[in-house]
Amino acid sequence: MKIIKAKTALKNYSVYVGADFKYFLPLLIKEKFKNCEKILLVTNDKVFDIYKDTVKNTLEKCGTPYEIAIIRDGEEFKNLESVESIYSRLIEFNMHRNDVLIAFGGGVIGDMAGFAASTFHRGIGFIQCPTTIIGQVDSSIGGKVGVNYNKIKNIIGSFYQPDSVLIDTSLNYTLDEDQIINGLGEVVKYGIVFDRRILDKLEKNISFENEDRLFKLVRKKEFRDIIYRCSYLKVKVVEKDEFDTGCRNLLNFGHTLGHCIENVFDLRSINHGKAISIGMMIAVDISISLGLLNDNIKNRLIDLYRKLKMPYMMPEIDIGKIIDAIKYDKKFKSSQNKFILLKDINKPMFYYGVEQGVIVDNVKKSMYN
Amino acid sequence: MKIIKAKTALKNYSVYVGADFKYFLPLLIKEKFKNCEKILLVTNDKVFDIYKDTVKNTLEKCGTPYEIAIIRDGEEFKNLESVESIYSRLIEFNMHRNDVLIAFGGGVIGDMAGFAASTFHRGIGFIQCPTTIIGQVDSSIGGKVGVNYNKIKNIIGSFYQPDSVLIDTSLNYTLDEDQIINGLGEVVKYGIVFDRRILDKLEKNISFENEDRLFKLVRKKEFRDIIYRCSYLKVKVVEKDEFDTGCRNLLNFGHTLGHCIENVFDLRSINHGKAISIGMMIAVDISISLGLLNDNIKNRLIDLYRKLKMPYMMPEIDIGKIIDAIKYDKKFKSSQNKFILLKDINKPMFYYGVEQGVIVDNVKKSMYN
Repeated sequence: MKIIKAKTALKNYSVYVGADFKYFLPLLIKEKFKNCEKILLVTNDKVFDIYKDTVKNTLEKCGTPYEIAIIRDGEEFKNLESVESIYSRLIEFNMHRNDVLIAFGGGVIGDMAGFAASTFHRGIGFIQCPTTIIGQVDSSIGGKVGVNYNKIKNIIGSFYQPDSVLIDTSLNYTLDEDQIINGLGEVVKYGIVFDRRILDKLEKNISFENEDRLFKLVRKKEFRDIIYRCSYLKVKVVEKDEFDTGCRNLLNFGHTLGHCIENVFDLRSINHGKAISIGMMIAVDISISLGLLNDNIKNRLIDLYRKLKMPYMMPEIDIGKIIDAIKYDKKFKSSQNKFILLKDINKPMFYYGVEQGVIVDNVKKSMYN
Repeated sequence: MKIIKAKTALKNYSVYVGADFKYFLPLLIKEKFKNCEKILLVTNDKVFDIYKDTVKNTLEKCGTPYEIAIIRDGEEFKNLESVESIYSRLIEFNMHRNDVLIAFGGGVIGDMAGFAASTFHRGIGFIQCPTTIIGQVDSSIGGKVGVNYNKIKNIIGSFYQPDSVLIDTSLNYTLDEDQIINGLGEVVKYGIVFDRRILDKLEKNISFENEDRLFKLVRKKEFRDIIYRCSYLKVKVVEKDEFDTGCRNLLNFGHTLGHCIENVFDLRSINHGKAISIGMMIAVDISISLGLLNDNIKNRLIDLYRKLKMPYMMPEIDIGKIIDAIKYDKKFKSSQNKFILLKDINKPMFYYGVEQGVIVDNVKKSMYN
């Protein structure tokens, strides 16, 4: 297990990478949450189906009265109604500020349960136990919690740092291929924006050989190192810019168009990682077409994307819908139009006022026919 | 105008006491909110009826596109539904983090609009313009924002400091008598807990002589000084204990039972200030019955209460309901049972585990027959 210390204005906390959930959670509760009298663990039906016994046995070992709240799995349930269902459980169980909410699930569970934790009694104890790659490398760290509203991603939320983040990478062994690809999108983002050695390591540990290569990848020791490196980078960026007014924005590489794609697909038929994978490739294309980036970079990335089964082309959809979404998306209209583009691998830059025509042309490149 | 500088972990900001809303708001927007492109002013129907023209003319002078959101007046509308109606306006008006929400109203509007501001895009610009005494001396300062849920007061909320607090004490001239009494409850609290000179000043500036004495009081220069003093004390307490884990708790003198009384009266038929006035008197009685406090203090306070038309006896209600509320209130059951009691004026203390029987006996004293 490796420990990353995060120091923020709101809270100092530790990220435990490679911790064993079963053994470590009871230790953590007993050592760091001595005033905690009650625990509510929030998870989703899919994760709970797999880890029912582990979760119950682990909570028993904590020696603290607990309850489990199960939310339906999926981005479409990341909303205020689900948050209210968590509030109801917190109220029924009569929990107070000293008590602890544990998020045991992917990014959706972490964001949503975190928002409930941040707003119940103006903030109660909060432990993130991400069960997906995307949760482990990105959303569980840094205190951005929130939900979607009116189909707008994460528009309601707050900054609320967790008290601890417990990353058990062995939980990734039960992910299906789509979920692995979802996480790899964010992992590759760290490689492109911050540390090319992540890309090197991915390339070394994957080949076209086997159909089940992603399942093999996540079981490798080297992949745990990659997760450690990504979460370390996340901590460092958050420490520098907790409230996202500067460099933390770089983490949004590929996300502006990615969110747009997610919205067109109704937050349902495409996952976040896949949407931002396509979004990153469009950002690469825009960078090339603006003469910022050499186009051989794109070939290297496409090669890696294919090995990792990450999409670089849009799923089939009426091209008009995507173009309309871009045209009517307020982000692209207002003076706020800001893109993160690339001058090279690990040389990101902010670019203001990319013309709509340039965006549309490059989106078209990502579409079949 | 007097300026109080508040320094907190989350934000540094100024409280402008005695500012003229009409002249000062446009100045403030132009000087301190240069990146603001849009303003949403949130108010209630009652306040807006009185200040419609002032509000519109003032916003025009800010020179920034604006909209006005009007919520129905009353504690019973301090809920998530109202917050969602504010979210909808913020979304329709396409507001971003750099834009500003102004709360123009009493504590309900300030708390609720502040919660919306704190959670929209994880926090947008926020100016408090309290139009009531209770808002000016208490709720607009210190960053406690939130709403009621399931009839539990303020159980959903966050810590979110305003960017500025504009206190125009002349707005108090249109308050009705009930609203003045509501505010005097909190003012007297500051006098009892922190600074006896507030009580002296109130006593000096009020007599039994006139039926309209409260309206005269709020128009006095001395009353503006009292408001300044209370808001100054509030700032100092918040600076010491922003997240309410220590001395900020003292501000809850009279509130534990006060909230209970508000709940029994359904948050409707008694206002917050009246409920805590009674709550403070019960806390005084408990302090006396535990031998902590000399009972002549009570006589002085009752005399002042009567001059200020503050209730010290419960409105008519089935005594069983109050006792049940106390018996079943989780706060009184759990190990968290903590009361703020008095050893003397300006000598508050935390007292743990007051027996239920003692509480009930002293509640009975506050009931007719």
